[in-house]
Amino acid sequence: MVVMTPQASEADISAVVARLEAVGVHAKVMPGELTTAIGAIGDPEGVRALALEGMAGVDQVIPISRPYKLASSELSHDSPTSFDVDGRRVGGGETFTLIAGPCTVETREQTLAIADAVKPYASMLRGGAFKPRTSPFSFQGLGLEALAILREARDRTGLPVVTELTDSAHADALAETVDVIQVGARNMQNYALLEVVGKLGKPVLLKRGLSSTLEELLMAADYILKEGNERVMICERGIRTFETATRFTIDLGGVAWLKLHTHLPVIVDPSHAAGDRRLVEPVARAAAAVGADGIIVEVAEDPDAALCDGPQQLYASGFDAFAASVLAHAEMAGRRVG
Amino acid sequence: MVVMTPQASEADISAVVARLEAVGVHAKVMPGELTTAIGAIGDPEGVRALALEGMAGVDQVIPISRPYKLASSELSHDSPTSFDVDGRRVGGGETFTLIAGPCTVETREQTLAIADAVKPYASMLRGGAFKPRTSPFSFQGLGLEALAILREARDRTGLPVVTELTDSAHADALAETVDVIQVGARNMQNYALLEVVGKLGKPVLLKRGLSSTLEELLMAADYILKEGNERVMICERGIRTFETATRFTIDLGGVAWLKLHTHLPVIVDPSHAAGDRRLVEPVARAAAAVGADGIIVEVAEDPDAALCDGPQQLYASGFDAFAASVLAHAEMAGRRVG
Amino acid sequence: MVVMTPQASEADISAVVARLEAVGVHAKVMPGELTTAIGAIGDPEGVRALALEGMAGVDQVIPISRPYKLASSELSHDSPTSFDVDGRRVGGGETFTLIAGPCTVETREQTLAIADAVKPYASMLRGGAFKPRTSPFSFQGLGLEALAILREARDRTGLPVVTELTDSAHADALAETVDVIQVGARNMQNYALLEVVGKLGKPVLLKRGLSSTLEELLMAADYILKEGNERVMICERGIRTFETATRFTIDLGGVAWLKLHTHLPVIVDPSHAAGDRRLVEPVARAAAAVGADGIIVEVAEDPDAALCDGPQQLYASGFDAFAASVLAHAEMAGRRVG
Amino acid sequence: MVVMTPQASEADISAVVARLEAVGVHAKVMPGELTTAIGAIGDPEGVRALALEGMAGVDQVIPISRPYKLASSELSHDSPTSFDVDGRRVGGGETFTLIAGPCTVETREQTLAIADAVKPYASMLRGGAFKPRTSPFSFQGLGLEALAILREARDRTGLPVVTELTDSAHADALAETVDVIQVGARNMQNYALLEVVGKLGKPVLLKRGLSSTLEELLMAADYILKEGNERVMICERGIRTFETATRFTIDLGGVAWLKLHTHLPVIVDPSHAAGDRRLVEPVARAAAAVGADGIIVEVAEDPDAALCDGPQQLYASGFDAFAASVLAHAEMAGRRVG
Repeated sequence: MVVMTPQASEADISAVVARLEAVGVHAKVMPGELTTAIGAIGDPEGVRALALEGMAGVDQVIPISRPYKLASSELSHDSPTSFDVDGRRVGGGETFTLIAGPCTVETREQTLAIADAVKPYASMLRGGAFKPRTSPFSFQGLGLEALAILREARDRTGLPVVTELTDSAHADALAETVDVIQVGARNMQNYALLEVVGKLGKPVLLKRGLSSTLEELLMAADYILKEGNERVMICERGIRTFETATRFTIDLGGVAWLKLHTHLPVIVDPSHAAGDRRLVEPVARAAAAVGADGIIVEVAEDPDAALCDGPQQLYASGFDAFAASVLAHAEMAGRRVG
Repeated sequence: MVVMTPQASEADISAVVARLEAVGVHAKVMPGELTTAIGAIGDPEGVRALALEGMAGVDQVIPISRPYKLASSELSHDSPTSFDVDGRRVGGGETFTLIAGPCTVETREQTLAIADAVKPYASMLRGGAFKPRTSPFSFQGLGLEALAILREARDRTGLPVVTELTDSAHADALAETVDVIQVGARNMQNYALLEVVGKLGKPVLLKRGLSSTLEELLMAADYILKEGNERVMICERGIRTFETATRFTIDLGGVAWLKLHTHLPVIVDPSHAAGDRRLVEPVARAAAAVGADGIIVEVAEDPDAALCDGPQQLYASGFDAFAASVLAHAEMAGRRVG
Repeated sequence: MVVMTPQASEADISAVVARLEAVGVHAKVMPGELTTAIGAIGDPEGVRALALEGMAGVDQVIPISRPYKLASSELSHDSPTSFDVDGRRVGGGETFTLIAGPCTVETREQTLAIADAVKPYASMLRGGAFKPRTSPFSFQGLGLEALAILREARDRTGLPVVTELTDSAHADALAETVDVIQVGARNMQNYALLEVVGKLGKPVLLKRGLSSTLEELLMAADYILKEGNERVMICERGIRTFETATRFTIDLGGVAWLKLHTHLPVIVDPSHAAGDRRLVEPVARAAAAVGADGIIVEVAEDPDAALCDGPQQLYASGFDAFAASVLAHAEMAGRRVG
Repeated sequence: MVVMTPQASEADISAVVARLEAVGVHAKVMPGELTTAIGAIGDPEGVRALALEGMAGVDQVIPISRPYKLASSELSHDSPTSFDVDGRRVGGGETFTLIAGPCTVETREQTLAIADAVKPYASMLRGGAFKPRTSPFSFQGLGLEALAILREARDRTGLPVVTELTDSAHADALAETVDVIQVGARNMQNYALLEVVGKLGKPVLLKRGLSSTLEELLMAADYILKEGNERVMICERGIRTFETATRFTIDLGGVAWLKLHTHLPVIVDPSHAAGDRRLVEPVARAAAAVGADGIIVEVAEDPDAALCDGPQQLYASGFDAFAASVLAHAEMAGRRVG
């Protein structure tokens, strides 16, 4: 939809129409009270490439088609996608996936103890091997050494393992070891990495960027989907706003919006947004009630000793009560544990 | 806490200490690796009034006490406030208050029909008489005429009535008719109005400003509380962020934070943030699950004909199913209907 | 512009068209590749009142006309408004208005000393009598007593006086004493106050709300303009964003946008956004360079002793150098001092 | 600074002190009116790693040292860094660097024509070879083919060339061809890429992320600086806020803040934030007036035909007038063209 300025001349209007038609886009002129609008009917990418905003007499170009394609619920005729991760069902509107584990793999003992604690309720085990840190002087994770520990935890508990990939150089090592590749919030628009992840063929957990719109999140999912990898979960983890009482603002209204507009499973991460252990359980319950397909939470054996993100981690000893409370809301919202 | 720059001299430090002590604030000097910090122990308002940031060698002044007082949960020794509104119990951690009704009172028939529809489940009836509108050319509400209609609806259903006050000129008229005075988001920092409302002695529903922090919301509540009016509910209704897929970003993590930091009842308005009817029920369920003390929703007999905010209003015919779904989550979170 | 969902039926489309035509709006159906759009040509308020988003098959309603009217540069045929304030010319694309003075009138001596200091360069004198404060426990200004001091400062220096109105109860007192009525950021959407100010017939300085869009700012100006008061200056003073290094984010790109879209004079307040004296001069220079019609700054005789907002106030002793630097950029941008 | 809750016991306080001292951090207890604070004097990273927020009785942990180190102006004793890029001086508080060129290299003819047009005023030539695009279905740039064209443009004009690196796989190819490696906004927290760029030893232009704080920007610079690469320019290009009238909100107050807090040269990109050609010149003038060390702008021979970002590009034919206007403000702010 091209809106002309009130001062636009007939010649300006004709020039826009000619330009649209030159690339095979059908143009429909709509004179209004103050301004004329021109509907452009055809490939939206082609229209955008014309950069009509630069032409004389053009006020604004308003896109009307949604910019994401493969992730759109229209593509799946409004039927939610479901898929298997090592025998665990994800998505499909019927299951609730509870992913839990340490923020970062620090030692073999720590990781195995937490894995044992979450096993009765969890659907998958999370644990960071490579940690993207804001400051270069912070602890960056154990790296490849952590992968061996995670593999042992998986063999012991039977839980599929979720780990973040931060650098395409580690892609093959991760693909061999872990079951779900996580793309972190800071890399949501690292398109080179998205394409690498798309080609690995492993299930993906794609986190929303700190200040990415929901439309951009679905376009980032498109980068992975277009490589033929259809097992993509998207994850709301809190956005950056003016409010600083909580570390990030968890966008649960956005989760409800996503359930309408994408067929992909939607997971909520209540830990990073809270920044305070006492907020994690209420937010996790709300995520289950709003209709999320699962949550991902951080658990620590002794949170006070964790090397990163300590204050927001649940205690392993309280995990059973936490899980029971969240799953009760998930069941009331029509889900069973995945 | 006053943090000095690395270049601050001994004289700079002494000057700050002298200034603090001159107004009776105790100062404690703490030399650090790079910079010196000075702890100021005493009345925080007095310290702020000194404007120490303007002194030589001062880098930043970091307030450590929380800036709200009367609304703080510390004041009530962490016990949540509860009070009566015309026989309906609000707050106290045990009840869930369901406020429902039309966005705006448009006609007697419309208002009574909606009041009848919500009566079986609702705790209170909402309805706008004076509507603050962004554009001066929009419909502004029926005004005083609406108050008579609301009074009739209350007599008929027994539901207490909630209406927004937009101008202190209407304060007395509202106080005579309605049971709860609402202060809207755009007036949250209209301090003259807050003081008027504080003096009316009626229960108040104070909405969070579109871009007010949670601390500012509690300071606004302080304006009402300090007039001796202790029946204040605060209401999260969505904040303005970069995300535009939903009209506002409902801050349910902020609701969890409020339940820790204030003793006042916390209500959630899922209608205004959503901007889309299909999002209202999931967000309302999430509000119940996160621990809110109630919700306030818009209901229309025939939403397509409403004169304002149509797309977000629930249909009266679907209100029973909506209420049952939300209240089930509220009960699971330990509440009974207020 | 009404965009239908891909699933919308012919009947859905006909219903929307019928509804538009029933209120005299011309409808133009535009079938697209995936979705159909319907152009609605007529009164935008009337279209909005229909709440078409609630109808079956409607995906979104996209307004194409701009929502502000009287403040629009189209109304003035792109010619900027100018007017007199007590013999001082404001706006018109040729003058630069330098408003300076204390944040708050604290004493007669302080106010007169600052008025004397700014007189050689300033176009007007600012000074707060009633101060809106976030916490009810902060200093709120001298009130009516300040007005007498300001009147004396005006008589002594010949500078017109700018003061904020926070409560319509003080409207007449202010109108008698001061030359320009300021509406503060927190009251930008206090519509009752805007109408009062519109009726006073005095020049107005309307500040942008902390999180108000530029379109909302111009709609707020419309509230004043529609009362027949045409002497309105609008003022950018920084918006609330995620960034906290500066107190607010001054939106100078927004000032450039305003100069294209409104005929009203645009003033910039660099003091409140900065929160740090050292940032005020560079931001003021940038405001002059970007094409603002003036600035408003806070000056203190001894900033360390000010009772509010101390750290951002310029020193009176440095005001000459400050003004010379800013005015040089204003002149380079084609302005002379107003 | 560790702030305890009002309910914290003596034992809670002692536990925090013991924990700090166990890792060699000196602890100073400061009892306050309501709460006790504990100053932690020592390595801030070490203190953060303790995750004290998780301990009983701890309310908040407030960092007082600034989190960036190598980029801090304290490190350079407040003297701004300057360095050479192929004989062009950058930074140092005396030069103004004007970087101009096409958004994307599309053809040899287009690139050479624009290079010729900007040569009389520009300090460097910009041009994209690899374009990160939000949608995977958009034009992604010519890739390696573009590098040969840029090399020819450099040989012809003598202007050093600035190009963005989007994938470490292209690092060596870029390092061979171009003079300044740009890290784009979406990759500002792609730490793997930052380290690669740090090791290349080429001058770097590091763009601020869409929603990165200024502190995070300086920490990202630390990632490059710690590899021994000291030739880093940082670039403000607009942040994401609630305002959508302009595409992004250019943070010129943030530029003034950066000039106080970092020794690195600060460049402003007015093109991407504006999204409208008419806003680029006023914002560029403001950038010069606020004290930036340079600007980077997009220029197109025929903007209407550009394949990306057309509406914000300057016309080559108007570049001389644009540059003269901006440089006049830069000179008034004490700079000469670099």
